[in-house]
Amino acid sequence: MRLFISREEHLRRTALARAEARRRGQDALVLFSPAQIFYLTGFVFIATERPIALIVAGDSMVLFVPRLEEDHAVAHAVVDRVVTYPEYPAETHPMLHLAELLGSLGLERAQLGADGDGYPGIMGYRGPRLSEVLPDASVRLMRDLVEEMIMVKSEEELALIRESARWGNLAHALLQEYTRPGVIESEVSHRASYDATVAMVRALGPQYRPLSWTFPGARAGYRGQVGKQSAIAHAMTTNARIQAGDVLVTGASAAVGGYYSELERAMVVAPVTDEHRKFFSLMLGAQDTAFEAIRPGRPCGEVDRAVRAFFEKHDLMPYWRHHVGHAMGIGIHEAPFFDIGDATEMLPGMVFTVEPGIYVPEFAGFRHSDTLVVTESGFEMLTYCPRDLESLTIAG
Amino acid sequence: MRLFISREEHLRRTALARAEARRRGQDALVLFSPAQIFYLTGFVFIATERPIALIVAGDSMVLFVPRLEEDHAVAHAVVDRVVTYPEYPAETHPMLHLAELLGSLGLERAQLGADGDGYPGIMGYRGPRLSEVLPDASVRLMRDLVEEMIMVKSEEELALIRESARWGNLAHALLQEYTRPGVIESEVSHRASYDATVAMVRALGPQYRPLSWTFPGARAGYRGQVGKQSAIAHAMTTNARIQAGDVLVTGASAAVGGYYSELERAMVVAPVTDEHRKFFSLMLGAQDTAFEAIRPGRPCGEVDRAVRAFFEKHDLMPYWRHHVGHAMGIGIHEAPFFDIGDATEMLPGMVFTVEPGIYVPEFAGFRHSDTLVVTESGFEMLTYCPRDLESLTIAG
Repeated sequence: MRLFISREEHLRRTALARAEARRRGQDALVLFSPAQIFYLTGFVFIATERPIALIVAGDSMVLFVPRLEEDHAVAHAVVDRVVTYPEYPAETHPMLHLAELLGSLGLERAQLGADGDGYPGIMGYRGPRLSEVLPDASVRLMRDLVEEMIMVKSEEELALIRESARWGNLAHALLQEYTRPGVIESEVSHRASYDATVAMVRALGPQYRPLSWTFPGARAGYRGQVGKQSAIAHAMTTNARIQAGDVLVTGASAAVGGYYSELERAMVVAPVTDEHRKFFSLMLGAQDTAFEAIRPGRPCGEVDRAVRAFFEKHDLMPYWRHHVGHAMGIGIHEAPFFDIGDATEMLPGMVFTVEPGIYVPEFAGFRHSDTLVVTESGFEMLTYCPRDLESLTIAG
Repeated sequence: MRLFISREEHLRRTALARAEARRRGQDALVLFSPAQIFYLTGFVFIATERPIALIVAGDSMVLFVPRLEEDHAVAHAVVDRVVTYPEYPAETHPMLHLAELLGSLGLERAQLGADGDGYPGIMGYRGPRLSEVLPDASVRLMRDLVEEMIMVKSEEELALIRESARWGNLAHALLQEYTRPGVIESEVSHRASYDATVAMVRALGPQYRPLSWTFPGARAGYRGQVGKQSAIAHAMTTNARIQAGDVLVTGASAAVGGYYSELERAMVVAPVTDEHRKFFSLMLGAQDTAFEAIRPGRPCGEVDRAVRAFFEKHDLMPYWRHHVGHAMGIGIHEAPFFDIGDATEMLPGMVFTVEPGIYVPEFAGFRHSDTLVVTESGFEMLTYCPRDLESLTIAG
């Protein structure tokens, strides 16, 4: 069992990115996005005020990092060379060191494809644009180049997302088991996450690497969607005490080799009312409608269109708050989106969440989220937690 | 006891930002950064592919959010008005809705100060620049305007950071208590974080809000800096088993009303060797050197310069990896920096970490981080965990 992306796959990705850059008339790529750098090199780092950049040149991959990350990058990044600069802000701005490095690679007057015109303003960073420090080069923005590669997952990637789904499911099962009237939402969330992580670490053994610094294990919890607050799709935790009659909306995942899945469930603490049953059932209907619309070759937007039609038909538009889902894998949200405005064609290997939600203000919110992969003939579910109300009822 | 920033303080901040924008000749500010929006409005949200923007006009504060965030923003944001757009990507791009909103506020040809020329590329977002959708306006970048306000903390802010330090200290004490040879780093990290969060939630009661979605409680842990890997300053967890003789580098904090502190300690699992003692003592000397250089009115860079001189004097430059520290509060790193390249004047109310580290490859890393606030006469420590080796030795 391999719990990380192989060196061979990283080399394949790099070769593809290089070929595509050439096809687009570029001499090299300069990438600043942590996700794109991770995708091509396998190097996970804490993105701080210190810029990190990857140069994909014609014949070499060079990773540009602060001194702080040198040993870490040398040990983990699939690149030909690691070049360091001292620090940010320091006496010489890192972007000037980067310009010098690009010059030494013969790229001072080159056609450069970049995912951004400089390092983004993370954690107080400020600095010049790439095009400012390399005035004789031509910098063309093409964040889509690697982003489009990221959209279609390989077998190795799907294996990590499946592994993530397994441990997200354990965390979710424990969360449900620990939840009962009187407990505080954040306590059961932490407890389920802790117990699932302990099991995961022991089951997978020393080869297991989350490759995530914000999320180093398995996790399940409520993030504030408890009782009336479940109607706030992106609520923040209020440490509420769970009460009889509450609707709860969960979230669960696990980090495996830098990859994620997403599992969310609406649950009801007994007593279950007819109102609960009605909206729960409509939510299931909306999710089923989405599943039926997923087919390779179709535009992503059709899935959202089908669900919106379902909402219209059942007079649910006052309770509509967001599109049906998003791609994911490395990021917890990635493009493309199941959204009427997204014409991207669904392709085998694309991984999506399917999570239409119904939010009834001052009453409750209802949302399941499942992760699936588009296949040649339709899709395959990657999450597998029961979806029905009976299975998701907490004893009151 | 108040565990959040008051409405009055938010109104004061807004008045200041508005006055400063006017002084700089701007008719309004348009802000896209989640940290700056939180600072002015108190609204914490999950930043996704859906743009959120705050308009600080001459006489009103308008928050522009996706439909998803409407009820949430109405309930929590200190603004005059919440205006929504349906979704991203949707059929009409949100930036066009934003342009329309700015037009309706009479700002179509205005002087606009902005913290970025459009929404950053978060979670697969793509879109036009603000200056593209408002071609008759003049957009000037001034991310520093609010950033400079954020640099100097008020009494209300310091109270939240002090509260954070208290619970970070508990998590850290539990982490130390649970650590012994044979345990897995991520297990004790999760266990300490869980137990500290339970205590915190019960001690502070229902008024406690972390106002953080990635970090909803107290936390302490190792993040990979265990044994030889402690020499990698920004390591990622490998779920290592802790062994006799290991050096460990911890990290602890808690989210309180959207504010954070930072506490880190080097610890040694017995038996403690002379080599441990030597580098531990030098690390303490470097931190003391930094403390001595902190004085209001001086440039931030002097603190780093003093510590680098200490490193030179003790032949430690081969083990130097990063500057001395960074401001913090809302962000886990904020500008300015204790870095030779930062000439910002230290001012009373600025909150910094002080964390010079010594990293000896293939042996161990040594770093304490403490959070302090600059005062009229020097500084006041906000973290208070023992710093000496004896207190930080784990029985072998």
